[in-house]
Amino acid sequence: MSGQFDSIESILEKHIPKEERKDIWRVLYGKELRNLKIPDKAETLAAEKNFEISGYVFEAQTEELRAPRIVRVGAIQNQIVAPTTATVSEQRSALHKRICEIIEAAALCKVNILCFQETWPMPFAFCTREKYPWSEFAECPYTGPTTSLMQEMALKYNMVIISPILERDEVHGNILANTAVVISNSGKVIGITRKNHIPRVGDFNESTYYMESNLGHRIFQTQWGKIAINICYGRHHPQSWMMYGINGAEIVFNPSATVGNLSEHLWPIEARNAAIANSYFTCAINRVGTETFPHEFTSGDKKPAHKNFGHFYGSSYIAAPDGSRTPGLSRNKDGLLVVEMDLNMCRQVKDTWGFRMTQRLELYASSLAEAIKEDYSPPVFKE
Amino acid sequence: MSGQFDSIESILEKHIPKEERKDIWRVLYGKELRNLKIPDKAETLAAEKNFEISGYVFEAQTEELRAPRIVRVGAIQNQIVAPTTATVSEQRSALHKRICEIIEAAALCKVNILCFQETWPMPFAFCTREKYPWSEFAECPYTGPTTSLMQEMALKYNMVIISPILERDEVHGNILANTAVVISNSGKVIGITRKNHIPRVGDFNESTYYMESNLGHRIFQTQWGKIAINICYGRHHPQSWMMYGINGAEIVFNPSATVGNLSEHLWPIEARNAAIANSYFTCAINRVGTETFPHEFTSGDKKPAHKNFGHFYGSSYIAAPDGSRTPGLSRNKDGLLVVEMDLNMCRQVKDTWGFRMTQRLELYASSLAEAIKEDYSPPVFKE
Repeated sequence: MSGQFDSIESILEKHIPKEERKDIWRVLYGKELRNLKIPDKAETLAAEKNFEISGYVFEAQTEELRAPRIVRVGAIQNQIVAPTTATVSEQRSALHKRICEIIEAAALCKVNILCFQETWPMPFAFCTREKYPWSEFAECPYTGPTTSLMQEMALKYNMVIISPILERDEVHGNILANTAVVISNSGKVIGITRKNHIPRVGDFNESTYYMESNLGHRIFQTQWGKIAINICYGRHHPQSWMMYGINGAEIVFNPSATVGNLSEHLWPIEARNAAIANSYFTCAINRVGTETFPHEFTSGDKKPAHKNFGHFYGSSYIAAPDGSRTPGLSRNKDGLLVVEMDLNMCRQVKDTWGFRMTQRLELYASSLAEAIKEDYSPPVFKE
Repeated sequence: MSGQFDSIESILEKHIPKEERKDIWRVLYGKELRNLKIPDKAETLAAEKNFEISGYVFEAQTEELRAPRIVRVGAIQNQIVAPTTATVSEQRSALHKRICEIIEAAALCKVNILCFQETWPMPFAFCTREKYPWSEFAECPYTGPTTSLMQEMALKYNMVIISPILERDEVHGNILANTAVVISNSGKVIGITRKNHIPRVGDFNESTYYMESNLGHRIFQTQWGKIAINICYGRHHPQSWMMYGINGAEIVFNPSATVGNLSEHLWPIEARNAAIANSYFTCAINRVGTETFPHEFTSGDKKPAHKNFGHFYGSSYIAAPDGSRTPGLSRNKDGLLVVEMDLNMCRQVKDTWGFRMTQRLELYASSLAEAIKEDYSPPVFKE
């Protein structure tokens, strides 16, 4: 199930002759993308610190009345660093240190908006169903140590940072939440958003720890454009993607943690479909590597108890409103994906395809209002 | 842009070594499918009449309290037969004859539910913007010649037939509509449904001819399960797919007509994403071949006037609720795709993934009700 091969794209590149690769690429990935030149210093840092780095450019048409709105987006995927048996402080510090190394490379690549994987300062321990020590990783999204460090980074590198963490909401009964903190390039917290859809599948026992977001579908206005964050399992819900589009997002990040056979064939489909359907950019980021826990747990799949969650297959990628996408990062290795995009493409694709114009939201507002009634009777035609 | 290579899958098969093909296949296509044995008589007929025929099986788990609900679904893609300069009667008769040849093969394969491409008894003439002679292809969906012939076929072969046509609605002002007629295996018309989303892109000038459906998202109860039809451009609208799911569809057909560079990289994504998001089977059917018209037309793309619509790239496929999919039919050739599926998979995937349970329709009903108001103010957070 796991790890050996590095990426689908590397297999295609290795075996498909150049002429046919063009056909394959056009149908499977859309318009071919120009490579973004990665600065030598960033390449060197990546080699030294053992992470992948790759860059692409999504181009838009030029317009007369609007200047291009160029933004460089960075996506980081990474393994945990310290073993899960280390103290909470040690585990978190090791991740803080690691992410700062990769942020430095992102800064060298002139990234404007950077996003990490879901609950990045901790292992994805929700498979265990143990409340401690894992709940101790939860932090205040405004004053916690991770936010403080990321505020420092954001200011230092003039970069918007999206930092997905496990939140402790001290004001509202000390509950936990799966949260993304959006930090401006000024170093200030613009706001937070929470995971709208919580899984109950396989080892994703997150509903044991926190509830669905009560914060709706927020948009964050940054210096470089309007962004939103559809955390992990919201990827499977087209309605969640839709509301971010309706609310005006131009880039929607999908910080995730997903493993193995159950989801790997869905991964290239869902965030990309959302980019197409909503005429915005999507950025799908997955953890990478295998996380092993101190105590064994079962998975509701009749198999014997075990201590690891399976292989997080990385493969982070970015998709554009025109349906084209970047290759994925490695399935096995830490990585930084840097993409330069012109946000003008969003409105251009809307003008071309007209998906928003033809969307008939009034129809769906009234259909849904009916459908949620207990006595709803679907229009079923019989002979 | 067009035609030469036959399918993505044939290129992969030719070049990727067996061991790596397994990895590629799992990630790009999901669980590997068993081939369905096509009867010799059907193979012979296909060879004689020059169409492709291929078959696959989607298997579900066995349950204690429910017997498997096996159904064989057929999808037919075809070129037009007579030139567009022939009379309306000649063009339609030639297509009637051709489709009956392929239906015979479907019957030999014991297909239970069969669907054709969008407005199958005519060329896709909407690119021309000429009202005549093309409007003459419109028929009454209850009493027209195409429905009569398909009723005969349905009864003869004990087969549900979904027949997408250009409709003339004589009762309501003689308007045209893009319609699918659902004919029971008893030969009776169960009902009709219409295209909910009409394109305004490239040469898809359909909004010149007919309006959006006023019939909502109907479901048809057949002997073999509940089906729905999301015609062509509804493929790009996740809300349309969603309502068919909410209303109980187990298989949603997507009879289409789509060409070239604009959409070919979206084709493998959208119907498959819908199968995943809604835990039902989807069946995406595209025209095949190039249709040339008598008078030249322009495409709003600054290019000189021309007489053909571009290459309809076929590639019809079926996707399952678990995200697996069949290979596509040829990009260049008429074809019949036969798939045996166990409809029990729909509820099983719902039980496993829980997308419906976690869908939060109440949230989206209220969010949409707000969003459609003229004075809606999206929740945008600024520094």
